[in-house]
Formats: sequence, structure tokens, C-alpha cells
Amino acid sequence: MYGVITQIKAVQGQRNALIAILQENQQGMAGCHSYLISRDLADSDSLWIYEVWDSKAAHVSSLQLLAVQDAIARARPVIGGLGHRFETEPV
Amino acid sequence: MYGVITQIKAVQGQRNALIAILQENQQGMAGCHSYLISRDLADSDSLWIYEVWDSKAAHVSSLQLLAVQDAIARARPVIGGLGHRFETEPV
Repeated sequence: MYGVITQIKAVQGQRNALIAILQENQQGMAGCHSYLISRDLADSDSLWIYEVWDSKAAHVSSLQLLAVQDAIARARPVIGGLGHRFETEPV
Repeated sequence: MYGVITQIKAVQGQRNALIAILQENQQGMAGCHSYLISRDLADSDSLWIYEVWDSKAAHVSSLQLLAVQDAIARARPVIGGLGHRFETEPV
């Protein structure tokens, strides 16, 4: 299995708007076991995504899905930047 | 809900031993919705725990459980240090 823990920083005040977009694809992506979203408690613009996939390939190919491409395009204006990113092997 | 994303660094070569101890309490702690363990892919001594709890209080009180206290005592010799720690609000 393959996992990734990602921190995304929203444009100030836009975290909830970004979460709403991310939630659209939270379910039903082939090979995705978990897509868990959390707000950072210390940084009001920051959120975390904890993902578990069958494989890294499954994760990469999900980025080609039309629905995901569309969400990324709509999310871009409310993304301020990317923070930490850790690749993992879920146990 | 309350969440915490924690990085723990095992003593060199002891990551699997640490994971085995952590797995003992992975299920059945009151108020715990998720206790997900992952190996870091970039650092062979590092692991991540992604936890979701009813509340911060539920998380804190779990640390008083005899089973958890026992596990912490047994884990201490194979823990090299603590890394990142992010408190979150799961969405």
C-alpha cells in the first residue's frame, strides 16, 4: 500500500472553500482506501490530507481523472501554497 | 472531533519492533475513531500515527489506560525521538 500525508495552505479565509472542493472526490476513486481531510489547529489557513492507496501508481493515475483535474483547476485560486508532504507505507 | 498527526523516530533498526507495540492498542480505545500507523518512506527509522478521537480529552485520558501505560513503557527503549506533531480537527 502507498500513503501520503500532505499539508496544503489555503489563501487566507478560504480554507473551508478549499475543503469543500477536496471533499467532492473524497469517495469512489479507484484504488483509494482513505482520503481523510483535517483542519490544522495551529494554522487557520492550513489543512491536512491523509491518503491511503493501493499503490503509488494508483495515486498518480487518479490525478488524470477528469473530476480530479476539474477540482484541481477550481482549487488553484484558493490554494496559497503547499506545506509538508510525507510519503508513507501504511501498516 | 480531535485529531493528531505524530511522527515518531525509532532507534535505528527498531521501527518494526515499535510498530508491533503500537499496534497492540490500535483497536478498542474508548473515543478513538482512527489510529492509523504508517512507515515514512524517506526515513527508515521514522513512522507516522494518524489519530482521530471524539475529543482532545478522550485522547488525553487514553494515555492513563493501563494497557497504554504498559505499551509506552515497553516502547520507550526503542523510541529514538519525536518528530513533527500536528493537532487537527478532522472534517
